[in-house]
Amino acid sequence: MNETDHRPDLADLVHDGARQYLRHLSVDSVIFSFHEDKLKVLLLRMKDLPLYALPGGYVHKEESLEDAAHRILAERTGLGEVFLEQCGAFGDRDRTGNDRAEGLYSALGEDLPPGNWLRERFVSIAYYALVNFNLARPQPGFFDTECVWCPIGELPDLVFDHREIVRKARETLRMHLDHKLVGSNLLPETFTMNELQRLYEAILGRPLLRANFQRKMLGLEILDRLDKKFGGGAHKAPYLYKFKPTA
Amino acid sequence: MNETDHRPDLADLVHDGARQYLRHLSVDSVIFSFHEDKLKVLLLRMKDLPLYALPGGYVHKEESLEDAAHRILAERTGLGEVFLEQCGAFGDRDRTGNDRAEGLYSALGEDLPPGNWLRERFVSIAYYALVNFNLARPQPGFFDTECVWCPIGELPDLVFDHREIVRKARETLRMHLDHKLVGSNLLPETFTMNELQRLYEAILGRPLLRANFQRKMLGLEILDRLDKKFGGGAHKAPYLYKFKPTA
Repeated sequence: MNETDHRPDLADLVHDGARQYLRHLSVDSVIFSFHEDKLKVLLLRMKDLPLYALPGGYVHKEESLEDAAHRILAERTGLGEVFLEQCGAFGDRDRTGNDRAEGLYSALGEDLPPGNWLRERFVSIAYYALVNFNLARPQPGFFDTECVWCPIGELPDLVFDHREIVRKARETLRMHLDHKLVGSNLLPETFTMNELQRLYEAILGRPLLRANFQRKMLGLEILDRLDKKFGGGAHKAPYLYKFKPTA
Repeated sequence: MNETDHRPDLADLVHDGARQYLRHLSVDSVIFSFHEDKLKVLLLRMKDLPLYALPGGYVHKEESLEDAAHRILAERTGLGEVFLEQCGAFGDRDRTGNDRAEGLYSALGEDLPPGNWLRERFVSIAYYALVNFNLARPQPGFFDTECVWCPIGELPDLVFDHREIVRKARETLRMHLDHKLVGSNLLPETFTMNELQRLYEAILGRPLLRANFQRKMLGLEILDRLDKKFGGGAHKAPYLYKFKPTA
């Protein structure tokens, strides 16, 4: 079966999109992973351009917002079942200016006719997702030459207001740290207290006191302690933990 | 000057709205106040119907989402400068069914022609706001017969998915309790620790331990302690507090 069967091509999107999709509405996602002690974001390099974008797309007329977000993520990145949650709607008047959209599609090899729906104003519903770096196998979509995991402190040029969307997604992630089992999506199945602390530090962007952090995490009663990690003298090996199964 | 000068009338909205507004997009707001120890939500009674709605409206083609939310709130409720923040985008396929929209507009005295833009699917961007009950002077808009402050535990029948929007707004408010000075919008300028605790209990929907609550609030260092409240013996009068000015 042809893998691209269900992917519209660019000309189809330009010329027939207004019939298939809700006008004025797009969906963009900020996909986080944790790797080598860094919080990273998945970006797509726009074909042949020195410009990156969040994985995004449009909403079919017969599709819910949530379904669109999951479909787009799968189409554009090869990522299947992931934790996805809204982090905001972006609706400034000129967030996708005519000129930038026109230049972008022109560089992608497709002229936008006057009055084309893609020249109109778009409001974007943004989602954030947490994925396990080692399990993710992102693949570029038909718009893109490559997927890259970019450390959140080293973002390249991003289209439109995508940098602001990343900022808002990180703020939402921080706010949710104490309410959701954020770590369970970003860490391997078992981990040390030290690894958990480094994840929290990467998300919060500041160092934490070791003793306070350990007391707080154990106080939440969300962790099961396992055997000691193998290696070195047993008295020096750190304990391994895993998240308790959710009821 | 005629107060309704800038308010479109219903026929204008039905027949000319598609030219003025972004299609498929609406804005709805959940306005919270705190009164008589209850968290209340502002609802609009739909003209002559036993049905209530959140204050809402549409986004002008030349207007940002935020500006639209503030304008709609002012037009529909008479409330001016208030704290408004997004709490979600609601985009289920059938959240505003044809039949319900048609019945609604028909009851409001306006038939929706086939293919009319108001029959189409709408995604709603929801905001929540915090207002001081004693300062708010809500006034109904042209759609509505009255504004009512309804305790959050006693909601009447609401149109579309507005009950779900209220639920999400309250969840967002709870999540923001520890991050934002939520109280400063909902309480009078000075208040007792007991009044502050009752506000938190109304938002959280559960009782809190008095000693723990007081220790936590004082630990946040966001309160200034004032003179004792007048009344009774001085040893029994509670202290008054106010929020520190934000830097």
